[in-house]
Amino acid sequence: MEVQQQGSEQEKDMQTDRKCHPIRQEVLHRENWLSLERAHYQTPKGERSWEMVRRIERTSHSTDGVTVIATLKRLFHYDCIILVKQYRPPLQKYTIEFPSGLIDVGENISEAALRELQEETGFTGTLQRVSAGVALDPGTSASMVNIVHVNVDGDEPVNSNPKQQLDENEYIDVLIVPIQKLELQLEEWSQQEDIVIDAKVYVYASCQPKKQRSLNQVENMSRKLGE
Amino acid sequence: MEVQQQGSEQEKDMQTDRKCHPIRQEVLHRENWLSLERAHYQTPKGERSWEMVRRIERTSHSTDGVTVIATLKRLFHYDCIILVKQYRPPLQKYTIEFPSGLIDVGENISEAALRELQEETGFTGTLQRVSAGVALDPGTSASMVNIVHVNVDGDEPVNSNPKQQLDENEYIDVLIVPIQKLELQLEEWSQQEDIVIDAKVYVYASCQPKKQRSLNQVENMSRKLGE
Repeated sequence: MEVQQQGSEQEKDMQTDRKCHPIRQEVLHRENWLSLERAHYQTPKGERSWEMVRRIERTSHSTDGVTVIATLKRLFHYDCIILVKQYRPPLQKYTIEFPSGLIDVGENISEAALRELQEETGFTGTLQRVSAGVALDPGTSASMVNIVHVNVDGDEPVNSNPKQQLDENEYIDVLIVPIQKLELQLEEWSQQEDIVIDAKVYVYASCQPKKQRSLNQVENMSRKLGE
Repeated sequence: MEVQQQGSEQEKDMQTDRKCHPIRQEVLHRENWLSLERAHYQTPKGERSWEMVRRIERTSHSTDGVTVIATLKRLFHYDCIILVKQYRPPLQKYTIEFPSGLIDVGENISEAALRELQEETGFTGTLQRVSAGVALDPGTSASMVNIVHVNVDGDEPVNSNPKQQLDENEYIDVLIVPIQKLELQLEEWSQQEDIVIDAKVYVYASCQPKKQRSLNQVENMSRKLGE
């Protein structure tokens, strides 16, 4: 079973000739954290340019930061996703996001993910998977993150009373949502004027298998058992 | 079943007091398409500022563009996801993304999504769902898109020979990948030096139910039937 690529063989040969290449990046304006740049690049029809933003590099990593998809697993509970709510100045709103942060100097990706999860939410997790660097907004910015899947065992003593370790200027609320209920919950939050959902959280929710009905069935069953 | 929010009732009351508010946005440098700005905002511990980028508004929409999650459905085929590969100057690499684009003046979100899908891939789709505006990179930028789920009926005559309608400077390859095989395919692409996966595509793939085994079983079955 192969991936289909549209176009004839001849067209595919032409694609080799119509490759684009970077030429140079010109800094238009540089601040402390961000740099507005013009990328010059070669196309089959000559040189073109593109405005873009870049985070000013502070470590040697090829990515800017980590995004942590953390699943909270507890006995007799539905699996939950651990999310954070915080004020985001660029949007002038509160956002619902996966825990995330920049990679510190001397730290590797996995260490950064587990540290950020612990600082922002108080939970101690175990690593499941680490993605390659993925692009957040490739039409506008050079921003890239590694997405790290983490499991949190909520029955472990270390996770029984999680305490955030926030910086003085950080104000982050931790939200724990049953995964099966996440999509409905996001819809509810979306209707609030001052809340914006992060694109990755939205995609995560919209891809979950639809189990609302069976969830209701289980709840009805539990009720019957408790009668 | 309620969403859990960490912290006592007392802490929750304090959250009302520790709300952040926007004060003003200061333009540091403005180009044709992007504006580098400093957002000033109020925190419980005084005024703070944050560097950010904003796309210069061309329409009255609250979002910058649309991202189209298009599923290709055909008789006797596994459902496929329609992706695009293109050179992205900010990353100096090729990316694998969902079809996407800006919303034109006078156009609504759904129209923009179906138009972008058709221009970039040649396929004609039908609308399934439209998200609220979601944030692409809320720590850095004001960028927001609507995510639009679309079905493409590959058995319809209109989709039998799809032809892209690209601008003179657009070079986009269309990739059609069986959803069940997407995660493996992304891993393969990630290993190529000049390709970066979009974060939304990665999350979409990593959330799909794991069906590799049953896929193999079906393939073995087909082979037996063809013997």
